Amino acid sequence: MTQQCDWLLGNLRLATLTDSEIPYGAIEDGAVALAGDRVIYAGPATDMPDLAARRRLDGRGRWATPGLVDCHTHLVYGGSRAPEFEQRLRGASYEEIARAGGGILSTVAATRLAGEDELYTSGRQRLLRLLEEGVTTVEIKSGYGLDLESELKMLRVARRLGEDLPVTVRTTFLGAHALPAEYREPGADAYIDMLCRDMLPEVARQGLADAVDVFCEGVGFSPAQTERVFEAAAAHGLPVKGHVEQLSDLKGAVLAARHRALSVDHLEYLAAADTNVLAEAGTVAVLLPGAFYYLHETRLPPVAALRERGVPMAVATDLNPGTSPMASLLTAMNQACVLFHLTPEEALRGASVNGARALGLDDRGQLVAGQRADLALWDIDSPAELSYGLNYHRPGALFQGGVLQHDH
Amino acid sequence: MTQQCDWLLGNLRLATLTDSEIPYGAIEDGAVALAGDRVIYAGPATDMPDLAARRRLDGRGRWATPGLVDCHTHLVYGGSRAPEFEQRLRGASYEEIARAGGGILSTVAATRLAGEDELYTSGRQRLLRLLEEGVTTVEIKSGYGLDLESELKMLRVARRLGEDLPVTVRTTFLGAHALPAEYREPGADAYIDMLCRDMLPEVARQGLADAVDVFCEGVGFSPAQTERVFEAAAAHGLPVKGHVEQLSDLKGAVLAARHRALSVDHLEYLAAADTNVLAEAGTVAVLLPGAFYYLHETRLPPVAALRERGVPMAVATDLNPGTSPMASLLTAMNQACVLFHLTPEEALRGASVNGARALGLDDRGQLVAGQRADLALWDIDSPAELSYGLNYHRPGALFQGGVLQHDH
Ligand SMILES: [Zn+2]
Ligand SMILES: [Zn+2]
Repeated sequence: MTQQCDWLLGNLRLATLTDSEIPYGAIEDGAVALAGDRVIYAGPATDMPDLAARRRLDGRGRWATPGLVDCHTHLVYGGSRAPEFEQRLRGASYEEIARAGGGILSTVAATRLAGEDELYTSGRQRLLRLLEEGVTTVEIKSGYGLDLESELKMLRVARRLGEDLPVTVRTTFLGAHALPAEYREPGADAYIDMLCRDMLPEVARQGLADAVDVFCEGVGFSPAQTERVFEAAAAHGLPVKGHVEQLSDLKGAVLAARHRALSVDHLEYLAAADTNVLAEAGTVAVLLPGAFYYLHETRLPPVAALRERGVPMAVATDLNPGTSPMASLLTAMNQACVLFHLTPEEALRGASVNGARALGLDDRGQLVAGQRADLALWDIDSPAELSYGLNYHRPGALFQGGVLQHDH
Repeated sequence: MTQQCDWLLGNLRLATLTDSEIPYGAIEDGAVALAGDRVIYAGPATDMPDLAARRRLDGRGRWATPGLVDCHTHLVYGGSRAPEFEQRLRGASYEEIARAGGGILSTVAATRLAGEDELYTSGRQRLLRLLEEGVTTVEIKSGYGLDLESELKMLRVARRLGEDLPVTVRTTFLGAHALPAEYREPGADAYIDMLCRDMLPEVARQGLADAVDVFCEGVGFSPAQTERVFEAAAAHGLPVKGHVEQLSDLKGAVLAARHRALSVDHLEYLAAADTNVLAEAGTVAVLLPGAFYYLHETRLPPVAALRERGVPMAVATDLNPGTSPMASLLTAMNQACVLFHLTPEEALRGASVNGARALGLDDRGQLVAGQRADLALWDIDSPAELSYGLNYHRPGALFQGGVLQHDH
């Protein structure tokens, strides 16, 4: 008997992003079959098994890619940092801005004050911008609450966004993002005590986080404090990741790799020699050119060494109000090429298969049978177009979990 | 008798962008009245004259700005330079790319080959991206034809876009953009002879250009050749502008100012001392951070000197396939702030009133009575938000020529 499928998509060019000698794992004259929320065939049209399709879509020669994955965002937050951006450009110093209540702690104050619906509404707006560009999986971090109730609130909002919108949301508990004002006196160690004793266990108990992250940096938390959080995460069965080597080389990446981190993120100051450790641990290197751009950084992440060692490189927006207010993964891909010299293929793999790996997901990011039916169809001549233009492209059609979201 | 108006917009905050001590010429509790394609009132709601309105719109506290003006684009072109972008990032040298037929002459070849409808369709796509962000006036240059028929074709496409879409299109003849391959032997002087003798007069006769532009640069045309084009333009009653001081200081800006140029564009290598001449001539300085970004330039335009001398600064996308494939004026505003250190207010004035001045238009770019009824309503807390975020905002409502385009 002929097998049934829900969708048969023909007349496509496929960027399968499988490990292949062929750029993009490309297949011309491709076809895709979907059943439920899965891809059951993706390959040459001529090799497609005989399938009875409930619905058909003529790809009209468009390129199909996996749905995009933005593996590092802080898109739930209260307030706006536009006034601070403006003050700085009018000549105010960092000290003046801090005295005027600016900086990350202003976002913490606004986030603590914000009602859950208010956080939901503003976060939803930003998330919709990502989805318009073909994102079907997004990570959202906490880290502007910095007390138990506010961190739980942020994570609940993130989960609710994933329930309401056509996107998979993966949440990350980032209680160790900054030291809240009320802990300036007792100090960072006391905050980490409380985090490991009260916050993390409760976050885990409520099942609100899929991973745990730490900002390991001179202006963040020390490697010793970072390690304590990693150990507490492990005790609760949660995988870890780290904001590391953004502004200095504290060997946070090596530490994270020792704890089998899913990813290490930023990495401008990563020593080329330390890429080995990442390769061995299978840790993904997440590149965040948006923060590099906004902060006028000049030191580049060791892309050549990462490439040579075969460390998977992901690319993400780092969408956040202070250092990367950028709601566009395609722009991050463009910046990864222009600023960090990735190839367009590396940028696309970074925003799909490697972004998924940075979230511990191996069921998406490639166009092959068995993967989730998240895919975007693009009216472009080659996949390089996605990284080349700024605001040039949005998907003509988008499937998320096997459901057609739109078809222009 | 009570005066009639077509639209009464209340409950708005106005960024009038008039010359004012108040940032953005802001008016809280503002109202706007439109009649036909004109603004007949913009100011405090309390001072509004008694008007009978055919239609009303509740601004719900949103900010109103003038419709945006993108005063420098090359958005009509054939082909794509994404393959070249990709080859370069894969390590190919400029020579290898040139040998493989890349560079501007590849766009010339593709544009010459393209049918008029094909150019229209691809240009329309890019233009629609600009309009989505609130652009109501755009300049489009020729310069990828480089022979009479192909230049006329580009300009006809640009005119047709302005007729079909809700946007004012101003066209610029840029025959002196590059030396076409068939003139390599006779040389640039011979090409400029032909341009002044055959092309420019015919473009003028058909009324297809509103201004004339020259790429004055070592890799473009010399100041002497530039001056010949400027003189020919004047003989046909057309104002001039120049691509100058992008890669070196040939004193093209001073030359252009002497010819009362509407604008001088790029300016990274402009000497601070030469800003005087621009101020005296009333020439607008058009800043194009997109090309700076794509080309990894490091030399900044003399913004402080321009500011001090009171030279009006405009900001534009430079939307073109080779050095600025960027269909987002808001991104150009953000780059102007981040890369060139403009304030958000300067960026907004640059993409509205000063952009209009760069096109010789004084009937738009400010929210005051008598100006064209081109305005955008934004759901933002302050106008600085427009420059701060990347892909954060699009207008919630947009009027072009007094006609409401959409209201979300
Ligand atoms: Zn981050
Ligand atoms: Zn240009």
